[in-house]
Amino acid sequence: MALRKDRCMGRLAILLLFSDDSTEHLAKLEQSNWKGCTGKVGSMDSQKIVAAIETAAKKNGIIQPNVYRESHALYHAIIEALHGVTRGQVQLGSVLRTVGLSFAVLRGNPYDNEQEGDWIAVSLYGTIGAPVKGSEHETIGLGINHI
Amino acid sequence: MALRKDRCMGRLAILLLFSDDSTEHLAKLEQSNWKGCTGKVGSMDSQKIVAAIETAAKKNGIIQPNVYRESHALYHAIIEALHGVTRGQVQLGSVLRTVGLSFAVLRGNPYDNEQEGDWIAVSLYGTIGAPVKGSEHETIGLGINHI
Amino acid sequence: MALRKDRCMGRLAILLLFSDDSTEHLAKLEQSNWKGCTGKVGSMDSQKIVAAIETAAKKNGIIQPNVYRESHALYHAIIEALHGVTRGQVQLGSVLRTVGLSFAVLRGNPYDNEQEGDWIAVSLYGTIGAPVKGSEHETIGLGINHI
Amino acid sequence: MALRKDRCMGRLAILLLFSDDSTEHLAKLEQSNWKGCTGKVGSMDSQKIVAAIETAAKKNGIIQPNVYRESHALYHAIIEALHGVTRGQVQLGSVLRTVGLSFAVLRGNPYDNEQEGDWIAVSLYGTIGAPVKGSEHETIGLGINHI
Amino acid sequence: MALRKDRCMGRLAILLLFSDDSTEHLAKLEQSNWKGCTGKVGSMDSQKIVAAIETAAKKNGIIQPNVYRESHALYHAIIEALHGVTRGQVQLGSVLRTVGLSFAVLRGNPYDNEQEGDWIAVSLYGTIGAPVKGSEHETIGLGINHI
Amino acid sequence: MALRKDRCMGRLAILLLFSDDSTEHLAKLEQSNWKGCTGKVGSMDSQKIVAAIETAAKKNGIIQPNVYRESHALYHAIIEALHGVTRGQVQLGSVLRTVGLSFAVLRGNPYDNEQEGDWIAVSLYGTIGAPVKGSEHETIGLGINHI
Repeated sequence: MALRKDRCMGRLAILLLFSDDSTEHLAKLEQSNWKGCTGKVGSMDSQKIVAAIETAAKKNGIIQPNVYRESHALYHAIIEALHGVTRGQVQLGSVLRTVGLSFAVLRGNPYDNEQEGDWIAVSLYGTIGAPVKGSEHETIGLGINHI
Repeated sequence: MALRKDRCMGRLAILLLFSDDSTEHLAKLEQSNWKGCTGKVGSMDSQKIVAAIETAAKKNGIIQPNVYRESHALYHAIIEALHGVTRGQVQLGSVLRTVGLSFAVLRGNPYDNEQEGDWIAVSLYGTIGAPVKGSEHETIGLGINHI
Repeated sequence: MALRKDRCMGRLAILLLFSDDSTEHLAKLEQSNWKGCTGKVGSMDSQKIVAAIETAAKKNGIIQPNVYRESHALYHAIIEALHGVTRGQVQLGSVLRTVGLSFAVLRGNPYDNEQEGDWIAVSLYGTIGAPVKGSEHETIGLGINHI
Repeated sequence: MALRKDRCMGRLAILLLFSDDSTEHLAKLEQSNWKGCTGKVGSMDSQKIVAAIETAAKKNGIIQPNVYRESHALYHAIIEALHGVTRGQVQLGSVLRTVGLSFAVLRGNPYDNEQEGDWIAVSLYGTIGAPVKGSEHETIGLGINHI
Repeated sequence: MALRKDRCMGRLAILLLFSDDSTEHLAKLEQSNWKGCTGKVGSMDSQKIVAAIETAAKKNGIIQPNVYRESHALYHAIIEALHGVTRGQVQLGSVLRTVGLSFAVLRGNPYDNEQEGDWIAVSLYGTIGAPVKGSEHETIGLGINHI
Repeated sequence: MALRKDRCMGRLAILLLFSDDSTEHLAKLEQSNWKGCTGKVGSMDSQKIVAAIETAAKKNGIIQPNVYRESHALYHAIIEALHGVTRGQVQLGSVLRTVGLSFAVLRGNPYDNEQEGDWIAVSLYGTIGAPVKGSEHETIGLGINHI
């Protein structure tokens, strides 16, 4: 039932955000039986962050759009990742701050046991701060859920 | 006032946790004018996580133990990182879960502008789950504060 | 000072939401010295949920509109019920989700002791999910306050 | 993809708590392809609430104890239900309050679409208040998750 | 229905904490139809803060101990005041911090309208910080509720 | 490292809000080596509260507008003060409530030790309630940060 060291999907989803060439990086992950996608979104509106990630995951076939359990799993992984980014209140514009984020979604089984089935990881990395250029610091978030 | 790309301390603090040889990795960071330390802590008791990081940072001279503003900066960075790890309530044992974490603390100036002075980053990476071996998934957190 | 089993107002307020004929159901409750009202509201805007319940309670004479202590008691009962519905952040549209809710407000004394005076219960039941038909699951909330 | 009216598992899980004869009530639910269990737990220690529900669900075969994804699904449903009960901070003794709760766990597919697979509902109903007999009011919580 | 300027009970409850001679100060407030008490409590255990205030309010006859609605009103005022003190998570020792607080409880009607009846204010003022002398800064909280 | 009794900046920042003549009061504080400013803001929009305080602090030279660490320190002090005002969720209009607040910002060193450098206090006092005249009670908040 243990996590396989070479299949730590949270670590992989973060490294994907840090890579210089995410296309090539993703191609390698796909060879190891992961499905994934990446994207960028900047907004003071938390709703748009959620929408951008959901849209990318559906467009790239990471989740099946017409099966609610898959959207539900992804949604909670996104909100959990946003907790890391916002650290206290899942709010952006309403407390006068904005984010510029890269995101990745990764799907596969990180466990030894096949019965564990697919899990989904959402990673976020970028900056958070005042809506003034340069008045910002880095921020990171990771959400993991069974799917 | 912008973040210097090669001095993104949050990214560096996370990569330090992912490195195979953190001693060597830290040595390189010190050559780039960062001060840092790493450690490990596992507990159901959130208090012990905070204490382990504070102790390591003081022992390794990352912060001055007798200047409260430095402890205050570190403390808030730790709590912010714990938000990413716990995603909702900064609670572990009281909601029957436990963590096994690596942590890193990094200190330096990530900005172009010298006036920005020192900032501190606390990164956390490991697993969170039930107090049963294998019943856990990965978790990550990052807190950044001026010091 | 104990709760009277036949006067558990939280239970009654929930059953009122589940009943097929809430008008008849309310009529019976009124014979047992409860005042109450029911309604429906669907929105991505949490403000509208609060407003719909407050308006219904005032229009139906459950609270006195010109006595602030009564509005104050109702307001806190509503927010507490919304905690059960939202489970973490009292936010809907800002985290890209919507609700379709039935609500009930019930007023009376659930305790043996007459000195306990009136209490107010707000119950909520319905669905929460993505703003896409069918992408939702059930949700419930109950807030109880002295009035 | 819609919820089937006769299969609203949240509503069913709450009604199970309100029934006079939960054994008979459960037997009927099992005839409609639900798996379920009920129990009681009273404590100032939130950890014990979580443990009691997890233990009952495993003992009664509602979830497979050796498959982490099932424990993970149940755990999050429990914590979501506790949000309804605690309304703000998932804390009991640490803010000097105690609960006496009935709980139910129900598993099955509430949707028309077979692809939605199994979902799990955790319902909680009882009293919350000061650790003084009678100084308490009712409280309710519901958590629903895909499994 | 407006607040009477000379009867702003929150302001009065805070000034009571700042006064050099709280006994004399309280005596004056009692001449203006307020009931009140003050005290001190220091702890890493949030439960003890709640208990100390409840005990003082009951001992000094600010609330009737055998009427639950009065304890309920006081309890929520205390928790609201603790939000100001803790600013995020109502936790002390579990996140390795401690408080040294003065508290005041004040009861009376701050409104023009007699129908508003009695309200209760809980004010807290002191220091919060690491369990190390001097590693602390000031903190304040105010909770107001109808009773 | 202890707080100097005559330099408790949180207490001073609150008293500034209570004073009848804040201009004269501020002048005295400036003679004791504090920098400060005061203002008023009323809104259902939490973003406007944050903006009003930031603007006042920059216009009055309390913080340097082009040094991010100073804005960062002020921002977190504001959000902490808002926790005291909102007591649970840092939300106003989205939960149908509004505030009318006086604010003060104070900067200086409250500690014996010169090495502690400057700290910043943000104090808030006013009313919170429904967007209906008179349906409101007092509220207070204090945030303190190193700068």
